[in-house]
Order: sequence, then C-alpha cells, then structure tokens
Amino acid sequence: MEGDHGIKLLEKLFQILKDEGVLQPKFSDPVIHFKDPEKLLDDFEFTIDNQGHATPAAIEQICRDVMKYSTKTNHVNFHTFLYGGYDFYGLCASWIIDALNTVPMTYDVAPVFSLMEDVVIKKLLNLYGINDGDGIFTPGGSSATLYAMTLARFKKYPESKKTGIFNQKPLVCFTSKEAHFCIDKGANWLGIGEENVIVIETNEKGEMIVKDLEEEVIKSISEGKVPFFVQATCGTTVLGAYDDLRGLAMICQKYGMWLHADGCYGGQVIFSKKYKYLMDGSELADSISYCPQKMGGAPLQCAVFLTKYKGLLLECNKTGAGYVFATEKYYSTCYDTGDKSVQCGKKVDAFKLWLILKARGLDAFEEITDNIFESAKYLSNLIKSRDGFRLVVDNQASPSICFWYIPKNLRGTTENPEFWSKIDKITTIISSTLVKSGRQMIGYSKLPKKHSANFFRVALVGYPRPSKESMDSIVNEIESVGDKL
Amino acid sequence: MEGDHGIKLLEKLFQILKDEGVLQPKFSDPVIHFKDPEKLLDDFEFTIDNQGHATPAAIEQICRDVMKYSTKTNHVNFHTFLYGGYDFYGLCASWIIDALNTVPMTYDVAPVFSLMEDVVIKKLLNLYGINDGDGIFTPGGSSATLYAMTLARFKKYPESKKTGIFNQKPLVCFTSKEAHFCIDKGANWLGIGEENVIVIETNEKGEMIVKDLEEEVIKSISEGKVPFFVQATCGTTVLGAYDDLRGLAMICQKYGMWLHADGCYGGQVIFSKKYKYLMDGSELADSISYCPQKMGGAPLQCAVFLTKYKGLLLECNKTGAGYVFATEKYYSTCYDTGDKSVQCGKKVDAFKLWLILKARGLDAFEEITDNIFESAKYLSNLIKSRDGFRLVVDNQASPSICFWYIPKNLRGTTENPEFWSKIDKITTIISSTLVKSGRQMIGYSKLPKKHSANFFRVALVGYPRPSKESMDSIVNEIESVGDKL
Repeated sequence: MEGDHGIKLLEKLFQILKDEGVLQPKFSDPVIHFKDPEKLLDDFEFTIDNQGHATPAAIEQICRDVMKYSTKTNHVNFHTFLYGGYDFYGLCASWIIDALNTVPMTYDVAPVFSLMEDVVIKKLLNLYGINDGDGIFTPGGSSATLYAMTLARFKKYPESKKTGIFNQKPLVCFTSKEAHFCIDKGANWLGIGEENVIVIETNEKGEMIVKDLEEEVIKSISEGKVPFFVQATCGTTVLGAYDDLRGLAMICQKYGMWLHADGCYGGQVIFSKKYKYLMDGSELADSISYCPQKMGGAPLQCAVFLTKYKGLLLECNKTGAGYVFATEKYYSTCYDTGDKSVQCGKKVDAFKLWLILKARGLDAFEEITDNIFESAKYLSNLIKSRDGFRLVVDNQASPSICFWYIPKNLRGTTENPEFWSKIDKITTIISSTLVKSGRQMIGYSKLPKKHSANFFRVALVGYPRPSKESMDSIVNEIESVGDKL
Repeated sequence: MEGDHGIKLLEKLFQILKDEGVLQPKFSDPVIHFKDPEKLLDDFEFTIDNQGHATPAAIEQICRDVMKYSTKTNHVNFHTFLYGGYDFYGLCASWIIDALNTVPMTYDVAPVFSLMEDVVIKKLLNLYGINDGDGIFTPGGSSATLYAMTLARFKKYPESKKTGIFNQKPLVCFTSKEAHFCIDKGANWLGIGEENVIVIETNEKGEMIVKDLEEEVIKSISEGKVPFFVQATCGTTVLGAYDDLRGLAMICQKYGMWLHADGCYGGQVIFSKKYKYLMDGSELADSISYCPQKMGGAPLQCAVFLTKYKGLLLECNKTGAGYVFATEKYYSTCYDTGDKSVQCGKKVDAFKLWLILKARGLDAFEEITDNIFESAKYLSNLIKSRDGFRLVVDNQASPSICFWYIPKNLRGTTENPEFWSKIDKITTIISSTLVKSGRQMIGYSKLPKKHSANFFRVALVGYPRPSKESMDSIVNEIESVGDKL
C-alpha cells in the first residue's frame, strides 16, 4: 500500500474515530464496555496469520472493535489513574510527531524539535526558579527518577561511571512512605538495592516528616552507609500531598545529599499564582520531574526531567559514539543533544507541551491548574456534607480526593476492625459494579494508617475538564450503587 | 476548546499534512530544507507567552512551519540513521493509540491492548524458536538492553534486588567492538561501570571473534571478576554484521553467562526463509531484542525485549504497589502486566506491530525483509561496478552498505595515510553538500580498522521501500557532487 491508499486509510480512520465517539465521549456514553479477558479473547480476532486481513472492510472492523472495547480514558468519568484525556492541541502535536517520525538525537534529523525541546526546558526551569540548568524529556515519570538517581550518584562519585559501584560503601536514598514505587524500581535497576531505599514516615496528610528524615540519615551514616539522594514528592500518588521542599533541602545540604522533587503528578502548580506555594523551595532542589501528561493535558508520553546543573546530564550519560554524534559537522554540534539521553531512539515529546503552551498561553495553564484544585475542593466539600461519605484527609489543598462510602446499615455503628473490614470490601464492590455498568471508573487504594481499608481515590487531572457536574456524578453514582447493598 | 473545535483542528491538521507532502514525500521533494540552527531560531517563532496564539490562522502557520522545516524521514532519500518511514497501517495504529491515550499497565484501562501485547510477544518468541517465554515492549532498543542486563544480573544474584551490588566481585559484560553504545550507557546506569564492558575484537566483516571472547572471559575470571553477560549483535549499527549466535552460546553456557542477542536492527530476518540463517541459534539466547521501528515500518517507538524465562521479568521488576496493582479484582489479575516494567506509564507500542502484521500477514513481512537484503545486494553490486566507488566490506549478506567515493584526481594514486585523510574529508563534504541541497541525507561513519576514514553508510530499512531507482540515485548524487570537487 503506497501513498494514496495510505491517505485513504487515514481518512477512513478519522471517520471511524468520530463515529465511535473516541475523540469526545459524551457524558452518557459508557467509559468502558467491560468484558472479562477470557471473553474478549474469544470475541476479538487477535490472531496473526501468514496471509493478511487488509480488505478495507476488515481493517475498518478491526479499528472499530479496538475502539469499542478500549477504555475511554478521555471520558469525564474516568478516574482510575493519574492520567485521563488530553488537550486537542496535544493530540494534534502527537499526530504530527507520528507523521514526521523522527528522533531528537541530532539537529539535522529533528531541527525544529531540537530547538523546541530547549525552549520548553528553559521555560520550565525558569518557572521552577532555576536560572541556568538543563533537562531532558523522558518516556514517563519513572524514567525521570532513574535520571535523577543516576545523576546524583555521578555527582557524588564521578569515577563510578567507569568503575561501577562494586567496591564502595552502600549508597542510601530516602523517600516518604507514600512516594511512588519508581524509586524501588530505580534502586533495583541501578544496583543500589531496595533495602537501601529508606522509607520515611508521613504525617496525617501524607507529607514526609522532615525530622524523621534527619534521624534516618544519621542512622545510615552510623551503619557505614552513604546517604546520597532524597526524593521529595510534590503530589503523592494517593493523597496528593506535597512534601516540604525547604525543610528537606536544609537536611540535604547539611548531609551532602541530592534533592529530587518528584512533581510528576503535582508539578503543574508552578503555573498557578494561587497554588505554586505548594512547591515553595523548588529552586533549592537539585532536580525536578514533571509530567504534563497528567494535569497538563499532553497525550502520553510526556514527562520532563530538569536539573540545576548545566552540562551534568551530558557528562554523566555521554558515550560519544561516532556513528551518531560526529564532532565535525556543517553546523554547531552543541545542538545535537541526544547523547544526554540513556536512549538512542526517543520520541519528540516536547512538541506536545510546546504546542499546548504556544496555543493557549501560560495564563490558560494557570486557569486549568486552578480549576483542578477548585474542583477538588468542591468534591471535598460535597463529601463532607453528604451522609454516608467520609474524607480520608480533611482540609488539605490537594488535587486528589480520597474518601469512604459507609452504607446505611453501618452508619452509627461501632468503628471496630470488623466495621473497617466491611468498608474495605464495599469499596471494591462499588468500584467494580460501576466499571461493569460502564458508568464510572474510580480507582481505590488503601494506606496502613487509614484503617487499612480501601477508599475511593479521585485524582484530578486537567482533561477532560473536571466540573461541578462531574464531581456530583461521582458521589451520586457511588451512592446509587451503595444504597442497594 | 472542547469537542467540535478539537475535531475541526484535527481535520485542518490532516489537510495540512496532505498539502505539505509530509505523508508521502515525492522523489523530487527535498528531504530537508536545511537551515542553520541560529537561522531557524530567528525564522521560527519559538517563544511561549502568557497569552496564547490560538487563532486558526496562527495554528495553521505553526503546523505548516513545523512540517516545512522538519526532516522528511519517510523520504526515500533519507539514509541517515537506522530508521526512516513507516507502513501506513503503523501510522494508523499510532493515531489510534494517541486518541485512546492509555497505558498497558492493568487490564481494565487497556483491555484490547493488554491481550494484543501478549499475542505479539508469543508470536515473536515462536519465530525466534522460543517455546514458552516472556517479553515486554520498551521505549526503544537501548532500553531493551537495560532490561537484558538487569535480568541477567538478577538471575545470577537474585538477592541483589534487595541488597544492591556494593559488596560483590565486579560483574563483567562482553560485546563486540562494533556493538551499539547502549551497553556502555547500560553499564553506567546499572552501576557496573564502563570499564567492566569488555570489548571483543571483530573480524573484517564486523563479526565478534568467538575465540577472543573466551580468552577475555578467562582473563576476567583470573582478575577476580564475574563474567555474567554477553551481548551479541544481529545487524551491527555500521556494517550490519551478524555475530555467530551458536558459537557465542557455547561460550556462555560454559561460563554461566547470559546471552543477549541485540537484533534491534537486524532481528527482522526471522521473518524470511532466505535470511533467517543470519540469526541461526537465536533459540539459544537467553534474551533477544528487536525494533520493528527499523526494518518493520512501525512508527517510532516500537521495540520489544524477549526472554526465554517465563516469569522472570515480573520477579525481577515487581514492587507490587497496591495503588496500581491490587491483588483482588473482578477479573484475573494475571492480565495486569504493568509490574513487569520499570516504567509506570508507557505507550501501547505493541498495537503498531500487531496491526501491521494483522493487515499484511507474515508473508508480506517476509517480502519486505527480502527486499531490503536484495536492495542492499543491488547497491553493493552497483558500487563494485562503478568507477571511483569502493565497498568497505565485500560479499556480505548485510542490510547496511558502506562505501567510499574516490574522486577522479585521487584514483590510482598511492593509498597512504594522506590519501585516506583526503577521502575522510571528501566523505563529509559530499554528505553535507547533499544535505544542504536537500537531495539526499546519507550518514557517514568510520572504523579504526578501515583506514579511520569516514565512509558513507546506507543502512536500509523497510519503509519507504528501497528500490533500484533509489539505490541508483544514491550513487548518482554522490558522483554528481564528487565530480565537481
């Protein structure tokens, strides 16, 4: 299939996307047509054969079925993870990136995108209060944490790039009990080991207790280990809590540790005059990560790693392979930035954020951010005022609202372990009933300190735009299922 | 901008993509409108402001400029790196993936895609001769090598996941002198260190010398180190050479090392009855990587890591974070495969390969593969028969053809270091002249054993389909510039 047929295929695809309501699911559309995996294996023709299935009718049916049985993450009732829908400018950028199919490795293969990545990184550094740093787009937030840990280790022991870390005192990193699991994965991959990730206790709101961090650092040193890295979380995965960056930075400076601010979920606040206080002290961090794919409406993947040390990314990661990074060229090779990366081929994710910001302006990003927090506040108030609902954390500026539903027959009864065990089950039953009905997808979670009973978690993102109506709907739907239990 | 406006934006975008010839560049179109970075910074409005630039006219202009000044990697004259254009079914899949915007982390958020990834991985394992293994799609081939190294280490020292690698004998890995740089990046990241990557000499064709490997392994052991990993290359970056998997597997078995077959570029041969002998012994490898984004025509990113050890990926990488991977669900959680990954959010790259294979069938993939090798053979013969051209390696079944151009005034003169130093310069001059004219983008490279003089490298990929005409054009264009030197 060459040119014209290919374009016909894309034209048809565009029609199907519109027909199937994928691009703008209506409120009344199901979020998901749930089928058990075994059933879907039967109903969908997954097999690959020697002969192709390329008649227009066969391809159309495949595309329609893929869309029909896929979850509509850009439905306003999708609240399962920390992502969801997208800004259409972001999707427009994604499609252009796919059509141009290139890698921001050297300037000549990605001229516009190489310069754009630099512009976006400088703008973000500036917003986080860093004057002259560096950065790189990564395939997700977990990868950004791996960059941070690798860079921190390299800064402390530059020779480890050559020699490895075999004959040295164990390196130790610290993060809060409610941090994202990527730090454990990172410790495993980077040869540090999961037991050298020291988990610091959190307060009621889910914020790392700074005093406890210092105690653990001192303890590690006394055990002959080398504390080198602290990961603060700016918007935890469950409660949406923001760690105290100023407090943590003081400890890091005192003990020579790298401070990484994981703002993958909550880093968006930097665009808001009203909420940027949540990341007060970001300029003191050695590095910051932020995923515009969450609150910012950039389609997956779009994540950025930022550091205040200009040149360190390249120094740490470069191998200078001549077949990619020739040193003598017909333009200045300072624009060939691929050797900063651990990847060779990578996508041009920066363009998604750039186009959204270019089209909408920073002011619009502020409005989007404020809307998230205000919607969260609205939901929080709604839960406080509604019989049978209870907040997990009260009075917190957070983009993530966690709450229990207590059915009528349990209201007012003694809240003993048996009570909470029932609540735990009820949460999962309501959640799966809603998924099977296709009406709402609401994630749930538990925390040891919070009765170890599953609660609903509604982690808000920028798109589709949360509204009073969508927040009302969450509570009403849960109640309508819960009332029948 | 909600729904309808968003769809209008995408409709306009589609029109622009057609107008600008991005989807199917004609032979006579330039591959690149080259502008110096400093000039492009002046000519393109990169700035991001508080106010947006979202009038339809402004957005249209931005999109047109992005396309105009971007390299047309799907032009038949783009030969700079190991990627290029794409199969339209692949682009169709990419656009669907973008529009559905989800992550194959748990079954409920990516039902169709989770099952599809499994189907594709099983099919590939089967083609490589592995009965019952496992696999994962990764954001590029370098990431696949990191998976391989991490898994190999975990298999040898399962306790390292917990303890790290601080108090153990240095681990050593081996690869050929012409392997991809990702192994050095991997060694740095994983705490192994670049000096523990032992580089094995290659023969004239660029294949690792098996006997030398064994000598180096013995030497490492005598130095108190632990050999654990050998990376074979199936299609080296420069010469397109295939290492001897059977020979390497014997050494690996003898010394208890993991054999990883890096087939990122050349793994495509498995689809061809005629060329799969190049990866003879693939069933003996512990793991294999393959990038359908190269010869297979899948749009970036699309890379897969395969291993013969079922369950090992999950065992090595899992953290079991409850807020993502709940153990009790309304469907069997064996379909929630995200915890095998080091990433949390990742794209559904498997669908690109699945749709291409579904639509075209395995037979068509065989034809595509054969065409690459036959086009390479045609180019090779053309160079042999043309005055002033010289192959770097003769008589090799390789998808990558490397050659020098020797201008008239140097033909027949003594081939001393001065001669080769002139050839080195001429290669880069011709290459940059062609880029600036927009007529051809041909990469160049050098190898110490090959007079350390830059040569042209044409690494063929599946799309756009290489043909006699496009191969003729490479030689003719080089000659037309070279004749005037």
